[in-house]
Amino acid sequence: MSDVTIPGGRIRSFVERVENIDSELQELNEQKKEVFSEAKGEGFDVKILKEIIKLRKQDQDERDERESLLDLYMRAMETAPAEKEAKAA
Amino acid sequence: MSDVTIPGGRIRSFVERVENIDSELQELNEQKKEVFSEAKGEGFDVKILKEIIKLRKQDQDERDERESLLDLYMRAMETAPAEKEAKAA
Repeated sequence: MSDVTIPGGRIRSFVERVENIDSELQELNEQKKEVFSEAKGEGFDVKILKEIIKLRKQDQDERDERESLLDLYMRAMETAPAEKEAKAA
Repeated sequence: MSDVTIPGGRIRSFVERVENIDSELQELNEQKKEVFSEAKGEGFDVKILKEIIKLRKQDQDERDERESLLDLYMRAMETAPAEKEAKAA
């Protein structure tokens, strides 16, 4: 047991880096709440706004997926050895 | 129906502000993953690191709660009208 040296400084560094990121995340989440509460204050329906954001994200995800699939097929096609042409040739 | 003017620009502004915050959130989450994967690469147990972060957060939350309760009691005490002193006085 006493032979094992635990690099405490390294652990502290990782822990603190994550904690810093976590507090930035928390701050951003609060900012997001503020935007929604501002919208609510102007009479907008927050649920509908969230729905719009969700739909736009879905559209984006679909486009991204489509693009990577397209890319994959294109590469596969380009790098594949030529198949035998129609048997008659 | 045709009398209602929907302020599309305002809606777009709210939606885009939230979307910008969301992409910052996503980036931070990726950074967090990178920190953990770096730690893993150096042989640390990521679950244990997460446990440390959670415990430290709990400690912090408890301290915060304790402080606000302390603050609340102090204010209540300071602003309360003086109660009658012990009956004998």
